Amino acid sequence: MNLQNIITEYPDFPKKGILFRDISPILKNPSAMTHCVDEFAKRYHINDVDIFAGIESRGFPIACAMALRYNKGMIMIRKQGKLPGVTVKRSYTIEYGKATMEIQKNAINKDQKVVICDDLLATGGTAKAAAELIERIGGAVTGFAFVVELTELNGIKKISKYRTESLVRY
Amino acid sequence: MNLQNIITEYPDFPKKGILFRDISPILKNPSAMTHCVDEFAKRYHINDVDIFAGIESRGFPIACAMALRYNKGMIMIRKQGKLPGVTVKRSYTIEYGKATMEIQKNAINKDQKVVICDDLLATGGTAKAAAELIERIGGAVTGFAFVVELTELNGIKKISKYRTESLVRY
Repeated sequence: MNLQNIITEYPDFPKKGILFRDISPILKNPSAMTHCVDEFAKRYHINDVDIFAGIESRGFPIACAMALRYNKGMIMIRKQGKLPGVTVKRSYTIEYGKATMEIQKNAINKDQKVVICDDLLATGGTAKAAAELIERIGGAVTGFAFVVELTELNGIKKISKYRTESLVRY
Repeated sequence: MNLQNIITEYPDFPKKGILFRDISPILKNPSAMTHCVDEFAKRYHINDVDIFAGIESRGFPIACAMALRYNKGMIMIRKQGKLPGVTVKRSYTIEYGKATMEIQKNAINKDQKVVICDDLLATGGTAKAAAELIERIGGAVTGFAFVVELTELNGIKKISKYRTESLVRY
């Protein structure tokens, strides 16, 4: 299955000059979704993962689909202010200003092995913050699972200490 | 399985006086997640649904899990500004001001039967807007699937023309 034929491109979204790669048609297509899970399942052995983390919010269905396949759970890494209870935050620089991601402190048990899922790897800022949050609460990052990787933004450099798997590269 | 024992309560979140019911422990627990899907699967026959819609963002894993069980797809109903391409928007009143939900115009085919998923039914404002968006783009709402229903907020009244299934009522 060629995911590139399914992913839709939208020029100038969310702003001028950005070509948005939309995985919505994958979510809508059960064969494509199953294909993605199959591919990731070939790359991460069940012994190397205890739980899947989804990055808000397109990472949630990816993490959920992986969790169901492996019969494991999923946790949420969210934008600031959405998670109740004791949390840990991590801020990082974005084009104009900064963004903050947050996780519940009790989201995982110590030394649990985590695969972090998102639809797309761009500059890697969010991904790096997500991995650091997992480590701050005692988890071990097995690696990342991205449907799409935008290679020219070189996000992989920011998360080079982790394993990264992506299914479609542009 | 008693989901009430798994759902965690946080007083005064997101603000004073609100008791937040957090389904994170369900997502983290594959038996609990499977239980939810099993329960919804008893209530919606496979012939009555073509696609699942998730309401941003805790509705996404629920819709994804349901879609995988039924071997159907899922679509996203999002907060304004997150979806590329031609979209349809719907604003509704919240406590202070208004909120706007958005859907891609081509998200579903005409007359497709849709079950709308979210973690929780509160006042019903978001749920009603979600159903109206589905109808505006030509879909037929089969019903709603909520993990939690807060009965005292009477959200069910706002969506009384639709079928509503919830697994835990407070």
